[in-house]
This record gives sequence, structure tokens and C-alpha cells, in this order.
Amino acid sequence: MEKIKKITLSEDEIPRHWYNIVADMVNKPLPPLHPGTLEPIGPEALAPLFPMELIKQEVTQEKFIEIPEEVREVYKIWRPTPMFRAYNLEKALDTPAKIYYKYEGVSPAGSHKPNTAVPQAYYNMKEGIKKISTETGAGQWGSALSFACQFFGIECEVFMVKVSYEGKPYRKIMMNTWGATVHASPSNLTNAGRQILAQDPNSPGSLGIAISEAVEVAAMNEDTKYALGSVLNHVLMHQTIIGEESRIQMEKAGDYPDIIIAPFGGGSNFAGITFPFLRDKLEGTRNVRAIAVEPTSCPKLTRGQFRYDFGDTIGMTPLIPMYTLGHNFVPSPIHAGGLRYHGAGAIVSQLLNDKIIEATAINQIECFKAGVLFARTEGIIPAPEANHAIAEVIRQANICKEEGSSKTILFNLCGHGNFDMGSYEQFFAGKLVDFEVTAQQIEASLAELNTPTIG
Amino acid sequence: MEKIKKITLSEDEIPRHWYNIVADMVNKPLPPLHPGTLEPIGPEALAPLFPMELIKQEVTQEKFIEIPEEVREVYKIWRPTPMFRAYNLEKALDTPAKIYYKYEGVSPAGSHKPNTAVPQAYYNMKEGIKKISTETGAGQWGSALSFACQFFGIECEVFMVKVSYEGKPYRKIMMNTWGATVHASPSNLTNAGRQILAQDPNSPGSLGIAISEAVEVAAMNEDTKYALGSVLNHVLMHQTIIGEESRIQMEKAGDYPDIIIAPFGGGSNFAGITFPFLRDKLEGTRNVRAIAVEPTSCPKLTRGQFRYDFGDTIGMTPLIPMYTLGHNFVPSPIHAGGLRYHGAGAIVSQLLNDKIIEATAINQIECFKAGVLFARTEGIIPAPEANHAIAEVIRQANICKEEGSSKTILFNLCGHGNFDMGSYEQFFAGKLVDFEVTAQQIEASLAELNTPTIG
Repeated sequence: MEKIKKITLSEDEIPRHWYNIVADMVNKPLPPLHPGTLEPIGPEALAPLFPMELIKQEVTQEKFIEIPEEVREVYKIWRPTPMFRAYNLEKALDTPAKIYYKYEGVSPAGSHKPNTAVPQAYYNMKEGIKKISTETGAGQWGSALSFACQFFGIECEVFMVKVSYEGKPYRKIMMNTWGATVHASPSNLTNAGRQILAQDPNSPGSLGIAISEAVEVAAMNEDTKYALGSVLNHVLMHQTIIGEESRIQMEKAGDYPDIIIAPFGGGSNFAGITFPFLRDKLEGTRNVRAIAVEPTSCPKLTRGQFRYDFGDTIGMTPLIPMYTLGHNFVPSPIHAGGLRYHGAGAIVSQLLNDKIIEATAINQIECFKAGVLFARTEGIIPAPEANHAIAEVIRQANICKEEGSSKTILFNLCGHGNFDMGSYEQFFAGKLVDFEVTAQQIEASLAELNTPTIG
Repeated sequence: MEKIKKITLSEDEIPRHWYNIVADMVNKPLPPLHPGTLEPIGPEALAPLFPMELIKQEVTQEKFIEIPEEVREVYKIWRPTPMFRAYNLEKALDTPAKIYYKYEGVSPAGSHKPNTAVPQAYYNMKEGIKKISTETGAGQWGSALSFACQFFGIECEVFMVKVSYEGKPYRKIMMNTWGATVHASPSNLTNAGRQILAQDPNSPGSLGIAISEAVEVAAMNEDTKYALGSVLNHVLMHQTIIGEESRIQMEKAGDYPDIIIAPFGGGSNFAGITFPFLRDKLEGTRNVRAIAVEPTSCPKLTRGQFRYDFGDTIGMTPLIPMYTLGHNFVPSPIHAGGLRYHGAGAIVSQLLNDKIIEATAINQIECFKAGVLFARTEGIIPAPEANHAIAEVIRQANICKEEGSSKTILFNLCGHGNFDMGSYEQFFAGKLVDFEVTAQQIEASLAELNTPTIG
């Protein structure tokens, strides 16, 4: 056994600001468009869905946004999160690379999602909102928002994709335990749900349908707003608490990352750990490679198109400038549910287009192999999403070994695998499958779009 | 929302010694007896099952035992654990009591069990042991030992009670992920297992049978030893790391507990948090009430008899002086699997007999109500075992309210409920049942014993 190096911070060191990377981008992210007029939408168009403070954060050019005292209070339940030097993994890989990881699974919801759920609940409470509606797939985001709402006396209503509602009941019970109401989606409670059920009473649901239902509930009720767990600018910004803490921890370790790696679903996890370091890159003071890892079954960053597309399947949201596979693209049922989204947020898409960041795609079997090696060396069982980062870390560490270079690699261990043991069971039983997406499938999905292209 | 008060320690403050309460006891725990000769057994009789260093710790009279550097290294993955002042729970109860809790669920295995699993694996490694066998019921102990063994290159073989093996597969997969081999017990791999299967091929297994299988594997193989997760003196001592940290944290909070509360299964969780404070009581410098909380369905402390009894069901272990319901007592199937053991360890039994500590029994429905209130105020979903402590905390806080006294209450939140959501589901569905044990049942179970009585 190698020694354990944990880099901890005191509570006083919880950062007091989130970082807004937009302030430092040369090419700013393109504005969202109204799907009817194709004109840029103003903040007022978002008012039925979000409280004003979050809309301001969505469009602000300010570089740092102060974290409210009440939000920092709730953060203290699990923050600052630890950073570890992965000596035992390094030894197993026989690599000269130095591997660090930031561990976000210590939150009561088990992932990084509460970092934005808490401020979203807080700003809604400040503006007198009584209820927040949202959607959830496998349940990570829904449970984070349920956890957050109770601290501010806000009701939480979650539309959970029916196939998950029935197949993964434990995340639902977790939300109930935190006081949230959870509906299987499609439901009879909304026009969107009823419309789908009329076409197919046995519809298994989808994230797109669930978004439509949650948005409808917020739009129809004065005292109800909607919340999203990724993609949007303000959501990504809240997650920069991860990277801001990591900067202090790397400094304490006397080191600085050459490469930062994170899994990629809608972008919040990746943005959270990389943006505060990319600040140095954009300011021209340091260089760092930031690598987003997506599943090969949902390769929007590596094989998608940079153009305008809807955020949901049904087409109710504004048009967002994104790397996308098309909003009708249905990814294969891989176990990293949090990475099965057709598009990337506007900021991350612009950064990728400008070659400020990189992306790669990895198959799930390689990811689970990496996750098991990590569990057996470092002692923490990662969520399937996090396994994608670990697989790329191992690839990079092997390159370091070949080259004989001792680069510093940092990655975001965004959550634990306590609710994902069924997927590990399938892995051990040899039942996991890798899904290839053909060029024809991507072309066909993109060909359906009649939204504006970019550039 | 009330403010959050988290009392953290730095890594340097991880205690360097475990506390052995035996050194301070006026009436020492009685020795274990050989079941054939009824003579006290010497350390040599334990040599086939445990490494010498653990046998020494089992019988030592030294007050403090140094924690090896390698063990402190692994502890650093999750230790020091946080302590919280439960302001939001206090507010919900409208009590003048000050409530603190120590949170042990931050370990990768999700409970306090790795505190002893890690040193047990370490001492076995030091003495050249290649494999450790053990039993597990619902899986908390088995996963903690699997986690610990991998750091020291030791194979781990777990006999898991068949009904749990089949009904709760996720704990099994967790052990597999950490590299352990897990068998459903009774198995065809041991004489004990084959004997049971010959009588009943469909036997659902029991903790007693699983212990017999694990002990047999250790006894028959030179390079294999056995490990136990509670009851024994050295196991309880390893857990005092919880209370030693808590002492420093209470001091930092400028407070000292009037009452300490912990759930009670075999005694390790309770011993862990209370013994370091009981040191002051035994030395006569401070007073503190230590309350063990057991389920009413398994009331060995409140309704059992203090006498010699076997640690396992089949009768393979030495005779231990314990508060017991009889080793054939089969508790009702409540959800706090970790509290379904027929007896209490020798030290705790002596302390209870000497009225140094107290005990109480609570029904599971009251416990789950308490757990849900805790989740909705403090944000952490507790394990069913921990709910027993919370229920008693609420009772004591209500007494403080009636009396208008602002006592300081500390409890051990020994684990999170991530693997127990099925029991919360039953609670919400109104399907939980409280089980009463009749005086006749206890009398009948004790009447079967022909082991020596005490006093």
C-alpha cells in the first residue's frame, strides 16, 4: 500500500465567489433564439420559468458572482470536498504521471448536483416562489433538488422518466424521504403528458417528455418555477465551486494540472472543475488541457454538429447554440444515465469550437474496467458517469508512461456508485454491451433538424 | 433555515491511540470460558482464528493502544469524520436541548465498520496471513472488510446469509467490486454448510450458520484467519477512534455531552462513541449518561439475562459473558439488520450490569419517523440502525422541553441509508410492522441454555 495524500480545506476556505467564464471568452457564447421569430430572446422571455436573479446570472458578463451566505451555510454540510493524490492508482498503472482527483460524492445526494440545486432553491425562495418543478432521468438531479428545497421551505415536484421510476425505485424513495412529490412521466397531470399517453398509453417516457411536463407545470402556475440540472450558463457557473476549491488544493499540494478530465453530459460537471483553471489559460498565464469525456453511444462533442437546436425532445425550449446529435436522437441504454443527453451547453460548445477545450468518446466496458481498478486501488466505488473520466485518466497516464513524462492529471470524481451496483453486476456477469453509433444514424438524426446552422 | 455548524478536525488531529476501557473498569469483564471444560480460555485457544496482535489486544489491560501509521494512512481516506450541531432538528423539535451528531457514514463503505476492518486486515497482513474469512448479514460488515483487505493485499472470503444474498444483491456486488469472494450461506464449501443443507436444502441461512462456515474455513487453513465486526473487546476498542475524535470536537465547540446515545447491535458502534467519554466518568472527573438503543424486537439489554452464552447459533465459539436472549433466539425481520444479534459483548454487558451505562428499546416505526424528520431537517438520510439513536434523541429532547433544561446530547449517526431505501419505501407505504416479543418467548429461549449463569 502506498501512503494516502488527502488535501483538505477548512470551512473558511470555501470560496466566496462563483466564476463566470463568459467574462474571459474572446468569442462569447451565441444567444438563444426564439424558435418562431429566430430572434435572440431577452431575459424577460425566461421570466415565467426562472427567478430574476438566475436569469441575470444566465446573461451576466461579470467575472465573479458572490455566493450568498445562506448558500455557503448549506454547502458546509459537505463542502469543502476533499482532493486526493491517487498514489495507489499510479502504482497500479506504473506511470510517472501524478494523478489527483476531486471527490464530489461526499454530498448527501451523492454527486456534484447539489452545488447548483442549493442556490437555485435559495434564489427561488428569495423571490417568494413556493414550488419548483423539474425532471429527472435516473434520479441524480431530482434527488439533489429535493435535498436542496427542504432547507428553504420550498415544495419540490419531480417528473421522473417512467422507465426509471419503475426500474430504479430507490432514487424515487430518496426524493420522497426528502419530502418531494415524484410522478412517473408521462403523467396525466399535464397536457404534454396526456398527449403522449393518448398516442401510447404504455410510453416508457423520456427526458424530453419529462422536461415538457415540468416546464408546463411551471408555466401554468404563478408561484411555481422550473429548475434545470445542467446545460444552462448559471448552472455551469454554480458548479465552478468545484474548480475554485481545486485551485486552492492544487496550490497546497504545490502542483498545477497539465490535464484536467471530467465526464460530459450537459456540461455542468466538466465546467465545474475545468473553468476556474481555464481562467488562467484565457488570461494567458498558464496552459492546461481540458478533456471532456462522453460515451461513444452519445458522441455529440466528437461527432455532432455545432448548430442551433432545442434543449428538449418535444421542442418547447428556446433554440440553443450547441454541439448536438439532433433533439430526436435517442442514445442507447448505457448505464451512465447522466451522459445520455443529445446536446452540450452554449458555453462549452463555443469553447470546443474555439479549440480551448478537447473532447473524446469512450465505450462503457472500458469505463467499467477503469472504475473497478479505481475501486480496488483507491477504495471508492465511482458512479458510471465518473468511470468515463477515470478511463481517460488511465489512457493519459499510459501515454505518460510511454513518453516517460510525469504530467499532472486532475479529474472530477463526480459521484459514488451506491445506486449503480446493478450496472457493476452486469459488468461482472459479462453482460455489458458497447454500442456503436453509425454515421448514418447521426446524419439521419441531424437531417431532421430545420433549425439555423452556425457559421 | 438555521445556520449549519460543522466541527471539523485536520488530518493531524486524527487520534494516535485507541482507548481500552478495561484499564479503567473496577469490575473487569469476566473471561470467556471453554464450552467443554468451563475453564477460562487462554489467548492460545484463539490462535487458529486471529493473529497474535489482535489476541493481545483482546486481553490487554493497557489503557491506550497506539494506532499503527499504516492504519492511520487508510483512515485518512474518510477520517477525521465531521461532527454537526443539529440546529435545524432542534428548531423542528422546539427544544432547549443542544443536539450534536458525529457522522460516520462518510466512509466509502458507508458506516463505522471500516474503523475496525482496516486494523484487522493490517495486523493479519503483518503476520503473513493471505486470506480472511468472515460472515455478513445484510452486508455492512462484509463490505467494510472487503474494502479494508484490498489495501493490504489480502484475499477476503465472505459468507453472506442466503436470504440477504438473494434479496439484497447490491451489497454483494459492492464486495465483489472491492475484490472479495462472496458465497451464499449455507454453502457446499464447508462441513457446517453441508450439514445444514442435508437437513434443509432450502435453508435461508442465518448469521449463526454463516459464522460457523467462516470460522471453519479459518480453522482448516493455515494461512487464513477469521474476523468479526462487533462484540469482541479489540473490535470495540478500534471503534473508540469515533469517541476520541468526538472529545476534541466537543472541546472545540466549547461543550460537553450530558447524554450520549448510540444504536446497539453487538456493541461496537455504542462503544466507539461512548467509551472515550466514559473514561472521564470512570476517572471521576465528569459525569455523562450513555444510552444504548436496541430494537424492541431484540431486547437483550433491557429484557435479556446476564450469563454465559455462545456467540453463534450453532455453539462453536467460546462461552462469552453477555446480556443475552439465548443463542437460539431468532429476532423478527426488522429493517435494522445490524441490531438483530442475540447477545452483547462482554465489556458492555459488565458496564450495564454495573449501571455505568443505560439501555432502552424502541419500536421500528417510531425509529423510521425519527429518521425521516432527521432527513428533512439535517439533510442526511440515516441507516435504519442509526434511526434508533435518533428516536431516543428526540425522546430526550422532548424531556428537556418539558423540564425547560438545555442539556447537551451527542449521538452517533453510524451510517447512511443509501442501501436501505427499500425499508423507507415500506415505511412510506404504511407496511412497516412493530414486533412485540412476549415474556414467554424470552423465557423459552433462555430455558434452552445449559451454560453457566453469572453471580
